[in-house]
Amino acid sequence: MLQEKSVVLIGAGNVATSLGYTLHRRGIPVTQVFSRTRESAQALAAKIGAEAVSRWELLRDDAGVYIVSLPDEVLTREVSRMVAGREQALWVHTAGSVPMQVWEGYASRYGVLYPLQTFSKAREVDLSRVPLFVEANSPQDTLFLRQWAGQLSEQVYEADSTQRKALHLSAVFACNFVNHLYAIADEWLARHGLPFETLLPLIDETARKVHALPPRQAQTGPAVRYDEATIQTHLNALEEWPEWQQLYERLSRDIQDMDSGQQHTPII
Amino acid sequence: MLQEKSVVLIGAGNVATSLGYTLHRRGIPVTQVFSRTRESAQALAAKIGAEAVSRWELLRDDAGVYIVSLPDEVLTREVSRMVAGREQALWVHTAGSVPMQVWEGYASRYGVLYPLQTFSKAREVDLSRVPLFVEANSPQDTLFLRQWAGQLSEQVYEADSTQRKALHLSAVFACNFVNHLYAIADEWLARHGLPFETLLPLIDETARKVHALPPRQAQTGPAVRYDEATIQTHLNALEEWPEWQQLYERLSRDIQDMDSGQQHTPII
Repeated sequence: MLQEKSVVLIGAGNVATSLGYTLHRRGIPVTQVFSRTRESAQALAAKIGAEAVSRWELLRDDAGVYIVSLPDEVLTREVSRMVAGREQALWVHTAGSVPMQVWEGYASRYGVLYPLQTFSKAREVDLSRVPLFVEANSPQDTLFLRQWAGQLSEQVYEADSTQRKALHLSAVFACNFVNHLYAIADEWLARHGLPFETLLPLIDETARKVHALPPRQAQTGPAVRYDEATIQTHLNALEEWPEWQQLYERLSRDIQDMDSGQQHTPII
Repeated sequence: MLQEKSVVLIGAGNVATSLGYTLHRRGIPVTQVFSRTRESAQALAAKIGAEAVSRWELLRDDAGVYIVSLPDEVLTREVSRMVAGREQALWVHTAGSVPMQVWEGYASRYGVLYPLQTFSKAREVDLSRVPLFVEANSPQDTLFLRQWAGQLSEQVYEADSTQRKALHLSAVFACNFVNHLYAIADEWLARHGLPFETLLPLIDETARKVHALPPRQAQTGPAVRYDEATIQTHLNALEEWPEWQQLYERLSRDIQDMDSGQQHTPII
């Protein structure tokens, strides 16, 4: 029978840390944390009452669920070694762009538990409002994972590997690239002796706005107004920072292309 | 003596509409709304108990404050015509990147009232939490504008034209370009049959996060992890959308440049 029993976390990075905290808080025992970096394993394990290990041969073999949050290429390289002798447990990874089939031929019960969120160790995130996307190699384990993940988050959905990859790519644009634009704005203000905090009401409203309006309808600014005088003023101001100048120009033209409907079809 | 008396709004676009609503709600009388587009003038005027006009010769000359929210090139072109005969009123524009000196030689009392926010007619914004940046051509009017703007917002600051231009350019990155990235994510999800709403918790956390961490420290994702396998997977997925593929590549390299400290100094 499917039992949740205990969990082993493989990885101690941003995602594993957030999952570890939440599992611990929900009373789901994490018995072991594995990380190739001993200090990382210890730091997380100490906070959630788990054992820390950093050598594969010390990995426990009695857990019900193994959650693997490793860099994609490490997961692919080490899958055989980590699963060997533990084929009957449920193996899930948390990567957006690694297909579920990475487990095929190694584990017999496997899947994916993908949290669509940005995690940093310096900031704890309430996982209960984070959408979790699950997939498994059997209907039973899909159901099990749905229910099990339901203990962590109110928002659990099924997504196959293709959908998950699309989610991940969208998240890179809507989060990682967005944050980089915040970083550019921060640098630009700092160069002019202005505090980044000034922008926070604007950043907040920009995010809130797309709860109510589709992003295309929410678009404002010089590009969508075709205000070429302001665009040119800004490009001139960026003269000494050619990367940002090119980025400004490309994003402005792209906004205009989308506004004029030129970006609705792929080129082939 | 400085009196606020009544206000005439010149322009009936997104910014003028938001200002008009707020002035009306605060009990500051807006006697007239001018827009070259009669329908726009009427739509706004009707909501705030003002007269609508769309010909310059009908512009009132008894207002204490004229607030001008016109496209930058229209403001520059029409400044002489609008001020003539009304030189003693206080003239302010709301543009981020137009210097205060646009008024010089026309008005005798003039300045700027720049709201750092994204405004769409489809969405009312609470101006009380919007930072307003003011500037005027005399200490008396700077003080007057600060106090007067304090009736609209809790956050009123002084900023000269150089600082305001820096604020505006930062806002283009942190709002207009950010919203465009949301729009790309929206399109990408739609192509894969996934709803944009899925991304909202991520978008919200990305914005919230920079209240607590500087954007550089908040950065996550494949680029800052130097996860070249995922970057390549995403670039391959974008093969048929070359604009977005190039944007993905440029932003990823830019994140890595900033992470490795290559972007701290201008090229000259």
